[in-house]
Amino acid sequence: MRPLAGPCARWPGNPDFIREIMDRIGDKWTMLVVATLSDGPLRYTDLHLSIPGISQRMLTRTLRQLTRDGLIIRTSYPEVPPRVEYTLTPLGESLLSNVLAMASWSVDHHETIRANRGRYDAAESGNR
Amino acid sequence: MRPLAGPCARWPGNPDFIREIMDRIGDKWTMLVVATLSDGPLRYTDLHLSIPGISQRMLTRTLRQLTRDGLIIRTSYPEVPPRVEYTLTPLGESLLSNVLAMASWSVDHHETIRANRGRYDAAESGNR
Repeated sequence: MRPLAGPCARWPGNPDFIREIMDRIGDKWTMLVVATLSDGPLRYTDLHLSIPGISQRMLTRTLRQLTRDGLIIRTSYPEVPPRVEYTLTPLGESLLSNVLAMASWSVDHHETIRANRGRYDAAESGNR
Repeated sequence: MRPLAGPCARWPGNPDFIREIMDRIGDKWTMLVVATLSDGPLRYTDLHLSIPGISQRMLTRTLRQLTRDGLIIRTSYPEVPPRVEYTLTPLGESLLSNVLAMASWSVDHHETIRANRGRYDAAESGNR
């Protein structure tokens, strides 16, 4: 039997749950919320303004998931009107360099990928 | 007007397409295929064996998307039976350290996240 290649070969038990975590942290809204909190706590409204394209529904859902996973903390200040802020926890901060790297890579290479897709699609239509 | 926080504030035009790329590279199967090709070319069957939980349908689809985006190359050798191998391109290699970091983070922190979820859910049900 051939040895397995890649990271999964070295995974401890529970590959299903590890894959679920990869799905969660690789989600674009997760990455963008974590990255956007890198400079400090933000209110819901400022998060919403800072992430173009996110709906209120997806932002609310993402914040709830990140709170449940322990990557951010929701703090409510008893003011009038009440003020709620979201802050990265140390666990969230430990993910920060990874998500910033993924975001930078996307910015740096999106034009190349667009060109690659164009070439691939042209070759495919030529083969038909 | 308050200045926007986070990486999106510094994005060049085309945030929709950059988000689409983030979605693509953050996909767990994309990350696992790229990571699994880190040690060199592999055949379809070896990739399938090396990534527990991936269906043939998802593997085929992921390989096609990665080929179209220019992150991997599909090489067909005219043998009997024909041999097909997948290899990372330089663009795919440039993503490698990022996806390996995301996979390692998931392995290192999945137990903590499981515990955080348990605590959160217990507190929620206590509040009901």
